[in-house]
Amino acid sequence: MDLDALKWDDKGLVSVIFQDYESGEVLTLAYMNREALKRTLDSGRVHVFRRSLGRVMMKGETSGNVQLLKETRVDCDADALVMKIEQVGGAACHEGYRSCFFRKVEGEALTVAGERVFDPREVYGE
Amino acid sequence: MDLDALKWDDKGLVSVIFQDYESGEVLTLAYMNREALKRTLDSGRVHVFRRSLGRVMMKGETSGNVQLLKETRVDCDADALVMKIEQVGGAACHEGYRSCFFRKVEGEALTVAGERVFDPREVYGE
Repeated sequence: MDLDALKWDDKGLVSVIFQDYESGEVLTLAYMNREALKRTLDSGRVHVFRRSLGRVMMKGETSGNVQLLKETRVDCDADALVMKIEQVGGAACHEGYRSCFFRKVEGEALTVAGERVFDPREVYGE
Repeated sequence: MDLDALKWDDKGLVSVIFQDYESGEVLTLAYMNREALKRTLDSGRVHVFRRSLGRVMMKGETSGNVQLLKETRVDCDADALVMKIEQVGGAACHEGYRSCFFRKVEGEALTVAGERVFDPREVYGE
């Protein structure tokens, strides 16, 4: 796709919503710069710009839980994408849950509603 | 919920992904400040902070296509939410489509893959 057709923000990023291509579950919200998007489209494997690290990483680089790109959608403002992906290993969240959105608001409380697939201490070390 | 439990960004906002509570379709990515989130949780109707206008608006204020909140999820970093909503009127996008993500990347091209529910010229005027 034409990367100049997107509206990159003042940090050179677009927001990307990752959604399981089969179940429709929203797994993660992450960010891409041009390099991350180009690498994702070229390789078919999701690469994101990790704002905390200031660099591009392939999703699942450490955990093996890579994401295979199935479909890309662009929003009306051209500053956000939805990527429908196949989640290898079953967990998108670095905390070991299937989805990063594993907590549910119930009144004043947050309850864990998601399923833990792996123990992050075993995957990333202590 | 405890609004202090969220990580508000340097503009006082969190990102919110809106998803149809029945079909799972991702409809919009928008932003909320504390006031928008409080009004949404209190009223059960989605309010967002429109960055282009610099103010809180109820979704569907002009078009009538309000969004009724069914469930709220919080991500691992506590800086993004998923809200599962019922879309009144069938269209979440100001361009009249069901979803803002109505364009699909196909090779170098963007093709319209979404369904147009209303004509924006009739709803918002020219």
